[in-house]
Amino acid sequence: MAAVNASMDGEQIRVTRRSPAYWRVTIDNPPINVMGPEMVREFQQVIDAMEADDRLKVVVFDSAVEDYFLNHSDFLAKLEDLTSMPDGPTGLPPWPDFLARLTRLPVVSIALIRGRATGNGSEITLACDMSFASREKAILSQWEVGVGMVAGGGPMARLPQLIGRNRALEVLLSSEDIRGDQAESYGYVNRALPDAELDVFVDVLATRIAGFDKWAIANTKRLVNTGLPPDVELGAGWDACIASLGRPAAQNGIKALMARGFQKPGDVENRLGYYLGEIARQAGDFDQISNGGFHGSEF
Amino acid sequence: MAAVNASMDGEQIRVTRRSPAYWRVTIDNPPINVMGPEMVREFQQVIDAMEADDRLKVVVFDSAVEDYFLNHSDFLAKLEDLTSMPDGPTGLPPWPDFLARLTRLPVVSIALIRGRATGNGSEITLACDMSFASREKAILSQWEVGVGMVAGGGPMARLPQLIGRNRALEVLLSSEDIRGDQAESYGYVNRALPDAELDVFVDVLATRIAGFDKWAIANTKRLVNTGLPPDVELGAGWDACIASLGRPAAQNGIKALMARGFQKPGDVENRLGYYLGEIARQAGDFDQISNGGFHGSEF
Amino acid sequence: MAAVNASMDGEQIRVTRRSPAYWRVTIDNPPINVMGPEMVREFQQVIDAMEADDRLKVVVFDSAVEDYFLNHSDFLAKLEDLTSMPDGPTGLPPWPDFLARLTRLPVVSIALIRGRATGNGSEITLACDMSFASREKAILSQWEVGVGMVAGGGPMARLPQLIGRNRALEVLLSSEDIRGDQAESYGYVNRALPDAELDVFVDVLATRIAGFDKWAIANTKRLVNTGLPPDVELGAGWDACIASLGRPAAQNGIKALMARGFQKPGDVENRLGYYLGEIARQAGDFDQISNGGFHGSEF
Repeated sequence: MAAVNASMDGEQIRVTRRSPAYWRVTIDNPPINVMGPEMVREFQQVIDAMEADDRLKVVVFDSAVEDYFLNHSDFLAKLEDLTSMPDGPTGLPPWPDFLARLTRLPVVSIALIRGRATGNGSEITLACDMSFASREKAILSQWEVGVGMVAGGGPMARLPQLIGRNRALEVLLSSEDIRGDQAESYGYVNRALPDAELDVFVDVLATRIAGFDKWAIANTKRLVNTGLPPDVELGAGWDACIASLGRPAAQNGIKALMARGFQKPGDVENRLGYYLGEIARQAGDFDQISNGGFHGSEF
Repeated sequence: MAAVNASMDGEQIRVTRRSPAYWRVTIDNPPINVMGPEMVREFQQVIDAMEADDRLKVVVFDSAVEDYFLNHSDFLAKLEDLTSMPDGPTGLPPWPDFLARLTRLPVVSIALIRGRATGNGSEITLACDMSFASREKAILSQWEVGVGMVAGGGPMARLPQLIGRNRALEVLLSSEDIRGDQAESYGYVNRALPDAELDVFVDVLATRIAGFDKWAIANTKRLVNTGLPPDVELGAGWDACIASLGRPAAQNGIKALMARGFQKPGDVENRLGYYLGEIARQAGDFDQISNGGFHGSEF
Repeated sequence: MAAVNASMDGEQIRVTRRSPAYWRVTIDNPPINVMGPEMVREFQQVIDAMEADDRLKVVVFDSAVEDYFLNHSDFLAKLEDLTSMPDGPTGLPPWPDFLARLTRLPVVSIALIRGRATGNGSEITLACDMSFASREKAILSQWEVGVGMVAGGGPMARLPQLIGRNRALEVLLSSEDIRGDQAESYGYVNRALPDAELDVFVDVLATRIAGFDKWAIANTKRLVNTGLPPDVELGAGWDACIASLGRPAAQNGIKALMARGFQKPGDVENRLGYYLGEIARQAGDFDQISNGGFHGSEF
């Protein structure tokens, strides 16, 4: 078993077995936990190991990086390194493949959210069976539309079922930062807990479930999963995401964010929702100038 | 563009372009914003214009009539004037056609609810992508069952997905007035805001979204819409609504409300939920008398 | 009508007609309202009578047993007495058959929950159109996984649509006791009310609805029901439940609970969630000993 573990302790994701039935998967890519091709490859190894293990009953995803649970993709990596990876067993590309398999895994998955869960971090939350967030320190966001992109990990398929179409569209189309309280109130996470209580709460719950019968867990989850949207919706979202990255809107949006300090520790990462509004406003000013000084009067 | 605008400024609905990307659609049929055939015709013109405009990204629906967002149908109009209107492009009659097209429009739609949103007002809310309500002044209601009718604009298809079957049935079968706080708590609207903050909140959000990329908005919304109930459910609801209007229960119900002052400014419109209970109670008394003085003992 | 009533007043379920349009169905199997084969048979008689009555519009389910609304199954009864009962008209076994027919009944069903709604009590709540719970005295739970079972009355099909997949899985996989406040916050029940107000609230609502038109009620509910999961999902859940009962995990779990005082008034019934954790913990200790003293270090 040590060998299996060794192959799973990647550079960016660490697997700790609290017991044969209860694993922790810790995301650790400092300083801001972005997800590039290497992390996607490691998520594939983790899901392979979880599927292969008959004794595993519950897995908790957490982070070793302060202020970040799991962040947006790595825009300094080469896109080709991601798009050239082979499809996974579901027939989907590796990231949506991992998410689809996590949702269908005969094992309980729990997201323990402290810090930013932007883009990919929100998507893994939606793929998990449950999620618990720090009231003070969790920030969820599907930020993609704000930068001219479409989200690639399935929130269009999953969020409306979870929180209703109206609130799903608010999350997706406003691209705003959502604090723990608001996320709980919308049902985006199961609960928001005081930061000081979060770790114990999740550990007690995971330990409890680890004592239950795997067959009963797996069959209960299998029947709940009958109502899932088909995997093909995740594929359609991924395709729209990749298409969006080839368009000038996203390229200019990412460039404008980068110019302000994106993808480095600092204010743009801390207040991403605010900066998306700023770059949109400035793009809007440009539009209006190029439209001959349109000023919004009734006409 | 002025010509397009002129054709859209109808007698009861006013379109204001805050910018090429951001329109306001203001419902203005005083004194109580009922919806008759003319307003339905104008909603058709509005949706035609919104579909035809490539620059439009966000539209806010609001009201110019104090205490009423959008109210029930006009029961003093001739029903034939409504039922004789041709079906819209979806194959549905004009009101459900408008609602279905609004939901699928590649433009973000936001309901700004101040005052009563009864029947049609609730239905347009459910067709919009998001809704924000005045905490003090919003009242939502699907009042139809209380007067012997079935709702015609799709709440049976849309409300269960949004707020769960149990609360949807409570809203529909109690026919009660739902205040802003309760609507927020049920997820019927995105949020209820203090009345003094509502306009600024919605305007800031709409302006923000108007600065984002239309392609990203449209594709994100398209993928969310994969989970919509099929349009045929809206058609089935409309048919049941029209059938209900031909039955004595609805005819007597409307007559009883009219006798108390319905469809005029005043207490019946202000407290419609209460008066629906009153006419049901009196109809019940009549039933019991005609049943030989049944008094509800165990038997 | 007296004859019909006589045939419906079973040993464990009492039907009271408040009026021809409004019935109460009172569950009364002291001391702890477990559900055995006899109660299932009586639920079949009740649903037959409700389907046959043209005047009935609303039915309220409540309990005559203090501290228990409707509890888990009777584990002292012979399983064969249940499994040998003929399938109902839906083609499902009697318990899921009753639940499916209740959901589709052209009559409004309301659960008035005071005390424990464990297993079957939660399942009838989910089959009803609405539910109102005592803030102080209601406890809902799907406890099955905690004892090595799968739930048999459809919560895997119904709970995710109602409260979202993440909270449904928390309820099902944690097997915890859920208090009234939490149930309301999750949307598991329509509302939690102060215990002193609960009876009046439900009675006023039921009386109101009993005054409305049955055709309008039935058609509105029929259209809402378009979105129900197919009945076959209830059948699959039932089959998994019966299969779980034949496995050692459930047999040992029930035995361990029985040894502590299960199925008698007392602490195990009062704090079932706690005791499920206890027996899981002790089973876990046993696993670890048999695995050579595994102590959860990173390896």
